[in-house]
Amino acid sequence: MSKAMPASVTALIDSFARLPGVGPKTASRLTYFLLRAPTEVAETLSHAILELKQKTRLCNVCFNITEEDTCEICKDAQRDSSIIAVVEEPLDVLALERAGNFNGRYHVLHGVISPRDGIGPEQLKIRELIKRVHEGAVQELIISTNPGMEGDATAMTIKHELDKLGKEVKLTRLARGLPTGADLEYADAMTVMKALQGRQPL
Amino acid sequence: MSKAMPASVTALIDSFARLPGVGPKTASRLTYFLLRAPTEVAETLSHAILELKQKTRLCNVCFNITEEDTCEICKDAQRDSSIIAVVEEPLDVLALERAGNFNGRYHVLHGVISPRDGIGPEQLKIRELIKRVHEGAVQELIISTNPGMEGDATAMTIKHELDKLGKEVKLTRLARGLPTGADLEYADAMTVMKALQGRQPL
Repeated sequence: MSKAMPASVTALIDSFARLPGVGPKTASRLTYFLLRAPTEVAETLSHAILELKQKTRLCNVCFNITEEDTCEICKDAQRDSSIIAVVEEPLDVLALERAGNFNGRYHVLHGVISPRDGIGPEQLKIRELIKRVHEGAVQELIISTNPGMEGDATAMTIKHELDKLGKEVKLTRLARGLPTGADLEYADAMTVMKALQGRQPL
Repeated sequence: MSKAMPASVTALIDSFARLPGVGPKTASRLTYFLLRAPTEVAETLSHAILELKQKTRLCNVCFNITEEDTCEICKDAQRDSSIIAVVEEPLDVLALERAGNFNGRYHVLHGVISPRDGIGPEQLKIRELIKRVHEGAVQELIISTNPGMEGDATAMTIKHELDKLGKEVKLTRLARGLPTGADLEYADAMTVMKALQGRQPL
């Protein structure tokens, strides 16, 4: 095996295979693609990976990924500061931005409470969220953690902390129900239950 | 959209998305994984990509990927020089090495004849293969191009060139039939046809 593959090839396959969702076969395929590709393609990728780590940091307000101290959304005076969508990860910000009907601000928790993985409220940006609510004119928090036990536990913790703060803030969660294009026949019981509970007037 | 994502993040997502089989969603996932991962993981990957292009070249005998002038397999005196497996790509060498029952040498064509893509015999390492046969004591070529029109056309071209050379060389192709674990019921007609044609005594 090793004879058929030089060290620099094995090293890159190993490196690719450390990425999530990339198995050894995909890692080989990517590596051999780069072997054949123009040097410029490989150099651009290599450079982009380094730049990512060198240039990015977390926004000092919302903890989204940014290249400056404060991110573009937090600096945008057009956005409504009174409403904050609280999300688990930076990619969730993108998902909400894509929806196109949210003009508030964000707060990225960087995870969810997960006792199994040793992640409690201290490991998340919950203290910073409470501080934002305490210091600012926030009227609503849309808790946009993923549906499920961990997202629910995180939402409850935030509710608990806000209660302790004693400030009047409206707390909401993203609606749960049938996704667009779903087939009721194949929907899981929990989804149908939530769709019934949250039914809307026609 | 762009406001939620700094330039260095977009750049890496774009770069990942240029890899085969990596769509925009996977590219985002990989990028955000690297954002969270230790800097060392990103640096190792970045470095491995550069090293791949800087260190590797093609073996001057078999045209497999190597870090030296002549690859390990071509330099290995234990391997049988009289039998050469002719493959399309370096990854095919790995596949045959994994099988564990081939002790001959290789010749990597770097593609197959494909008029649609403008690839004729001149773009492949066919001339170099004929030269190896002409100059060496080769007794058998196992044409291991993939089954299918292009692999078959490439095999026929090699046969034609060898006929012109007028040297006595045994030409074989890899057997075709049912793969291990296959279900006859679901096998395609061409595979079953080939399995019948190539049936072996019990």
